[in-house]
Amino acid sequence: MQASKHPEELPLAAESASGYAGEGVAVAQSASLEGRMLRLLLSAFGDPRVRIVLWNGESICTSPETPVATVRLANRATLLRLCADPDVQFGEGYSAGDIDVQGDLGLLIEEIYRGAAAPRGGGAVALARRIAHSLHRRPANTLQGSQHNIHHHYDIGNEFYSLWLGATMAYTCAYFPTESATLDEAQVAKMDHVCRKLRLRPGQKVVEAGCGWGSLALHMAERYGVEVRAFNISREQIAYARDRAKERGLDGRVEFVLDDYRNISGRYDAFASVGMLEHVGVENYEELGRIIYRSLAPHGLGLIHTIGRNRPKPMHRWIDKRIFPGASPPSLKQMMDIFEGGNLSVLDVENIRLHYAKTLACWIRLYERSAQRVAQMFDERFVRMWRLYLEGSGAAFRTGELQLFQVVFAHGGNNAIPWTRADVYAS
Amino acid sequence: MQASKHPEELPLAAESASGYAGEGVAVAQSASLEGRMLRLLLSAFGDPRVRIVLWNGESICTSPETPVATVRLANRATLLRLCADPDVQFGEGYSAGDIDVQGDLGLLIEEIYRGAAAPRGGGAVALARRIAHSLHRRPANTLQGSQHNIHHHYDIGNEFYSLWLGATMAYTCAYFPTESATLDEAQVAKMDHVCRKLRLRPGQKVVEAGCGWGSLALHMAERYGVEVRAFNISREQIAYARDRAKERGLDGRVEFVLDDYRNISGRYDAFASVGMLEHVGVENYEELGRIIYRSLAPHGLGLIHTIGRNRPKPMHRWIDKRIFPGASPPSLKQMMDIFEGGNLSVLDVENIRLHYAKTLACWIRLYERSAQRVAQMFDERFVRMWRLYLEGSGAAFRTGELQLFQVVFAHGGNNAIPWTRADVYAS
Repeated sequence: MQASKHPEELPLAAESASGYAGEGVAVAQSASLEGRMLRLLLSAFGDPRVRIVLWNGESICTSPETPVATVRLANRATLLRLCADPDVQFGEGYSAGDIDVQGDLGLLIEEIYRGAAAPRGGGAVALARRIAHSLHRRPANTLQGSQHNIHHHYDIGNEFYSLWLGATMAYTCAYFPTESATLDEAQVAKMDHVCRKLRLRPGQKVVEAGCGWGSLALHMAERYGVEVRAFNISREQIAYARDRAKERGLDGRVEFVLDDYRNISGRYDAFASVGMLEHVGVENYEELGRIIYRSLAPHGLGLIHTIGRNRPKPMHRWIDKRIFPGASPPSLKQMMDIFEGGNLSVLDVENIRLHYAKTLACWIRLYERSAQRVAQMFDERFVRMWRLYLEGSGAAFRTGELQLFQVVFAHGGNNAIPWTRADVYAS
Repeated sequence: MQASKHPEELPLAAESASGYAGEGVAVAQSASLEGRMLRLLLSAFGDPRVRIVLWNGESICTSPETPVATVRLANRATLLRLCADPDVQFGEGYSAGDIDVQGDLGLLIEEIYRGAAAPRGGGAVALARRIAHSLHRRPANTLQGSQHNIHHHYDIGNEFYSLWLGATMAYTCAYFPTESATLDEAQVAKMDHVCRKLRLRPGQKVVEAGCGWGSLALHMAERYGVEVRAFNISREQIAYARDRAKERGLDGRVEFVLDDYRNISGRYDAFASVGMLEHVGVENYEELGRIIYRSLAPHGLGLIHTIGRNRPKPMHRWIDKRIFPGASPPSLKQMMDIFEGGNLSVLDVENIRLHYAKTLACWIRLYERSAQRVAQMFDERFVRMWRLYLEGSGAAFRTGELQLFQVVFAHGGNNAIPWTRADVYAS
């Protein structure tokens, strides 16, 4: 699927211990404009083990170590755009095919993430990055803004997602009890892990904020005998979930509500939210805390499962522009705004980021198998854009750029909380 | 041990469903100065289910419900002091015997904590509380300040602590795998719980920041085959710990260092700190984070076990004055300052506050059995002061005023982190 514009094959970086650029002309010592721009670009990203090859065959690698992959630029305009705003323009150029990668795309992004954590300079390129960051306006998560943001990502077609999410259509981090579990097994194990942490008992009422295609709500009702009200503002997802509920005879016990989490009413024995917080926005956490406070019964338990960070950082700008407008994974410190306002008590936090790296590896395998089908449904640019997003996400979880937190909580005065966590792990 | 100054026995509050004050003259409708002051006092604490009886037999209970206990004031001066600064003067008056309690002291404090969370007014008394809070100067936890603060509490005599801490001399929250475990079993289970969370393996090097009387360090070396350097600035505790190490033939593998955690040097496979963070002070968390960052090997795991809160709040002023100068249990949000600066990654948080309530109940039983011995070692005032502290702490954990967090963490880029937590619970 690599739409290479360069018929000559360079030796793969990993095979070239000397970092020798094959047939290209090394510009490492070159004082050409291109050479100087490439040096600044690589320096702004901490001189990663990456070789860049230009349209004219010139190549550069500023790291003394063997490159993990080779990046080819199709023309001067691509180089200029890349230097002016590398965070957005790498994705744009890759999607368009003006930037191509030989070698492992995921490893390349890992290398860039690791290097970017320790930039060594970068002059004008580093400055341009900072300016572009500061000028970037993120879409707001007001009631209406959220509608738009969620529609952008989740309503592009259930068929598309069904090609690579596996049988459960769960579009959140799976939980692999053993490393040999399959994706579908791990998604079911994740649902059980959530239900066990919530200590669900038959007859209880559960509210779910952001239910995706409904797999968790249906699983809760079917396996744990609870009644669920599940909220989501994605029309396609709710339609799909309602069909599944009917098929499985669960439409009497699971109500899928096409509405914003801010409109949740009633009191519930459990509050669950898996993969929604990323779209809430830090500025709305106190309000979310108030909604939880009034929705959760005094004896109830709640769980939020979310992508997070070790420290606050805005979402990658290309992801914000092309993939998830308005999304922002919080640090644990930021998340605490949900709980501290309402004297909610955090009982348990588990970070399972490596499970998301594995989940993404499974999705990528399925995605690549269906790439031709995706190209027919959309176009080649779309295929490349989503490849970059999925590979980049995998790299982010492997490098610790992203985390996956499951947080269990209760009202501050609730003494009916679980005595230990041993029951979660009892077989 | 209740040094009552009132020979007449009032009917115990819990037995008096009508809230009738027995032989006393009810002042509920009284417009006397005392009556008005008592109303303000009770109102500032949310009108708890508490009866107050004055030196002249007058009594008041502003709650319509049955009082859980009766508080007797010996004289007008005590009432005045109590109204001027109830948070400190309740403890002072109780210690001196000018305030006495009939009924369950722990239940009384629970009631006050629950009521104080929702004060209904209190006028001048509420104002006095706020002013006293704002004027209170807490001892600093500089290198020298910490020396003084720790000496105040931990160096009052190993014999005293040995009367009621149980065989392990562990002065931190125990972990009761079952509710029927004994205190000593639960303290050993806590140490195993910590060691399992750290995934200790033979031959590893561990650093412990704040080691108490050394029980955890010795347990780690003896049962998990690791080498431990354990830091503490309490002379009495270090002397005791060194004696135990020699007795158990562990002095070659456990080094007890009489020094501040800020002077930890070297790199370790694991970092453990159980019950020290309460004394560090929020203003020093970033520095602690830097110490952890440089002390923890890239593949290492760390654990901090600490009393905490659901939201920030200064330490109770009487506890700060008489028991733990300079101590302050953090909220999770505050704790995150330790980790976010150094890109440390939080892997696991467990809140076991009810285990501390149970631990305190065990300590209180042993303490009351030894109360006569404590009175001989110190005096009756000391006996009452520590009774109030222990009962108050139990009430704080039962009401959710205090939490107990165990936080496991690693370097942000460490991919050798545990895959799941199932191994912690495997038998």
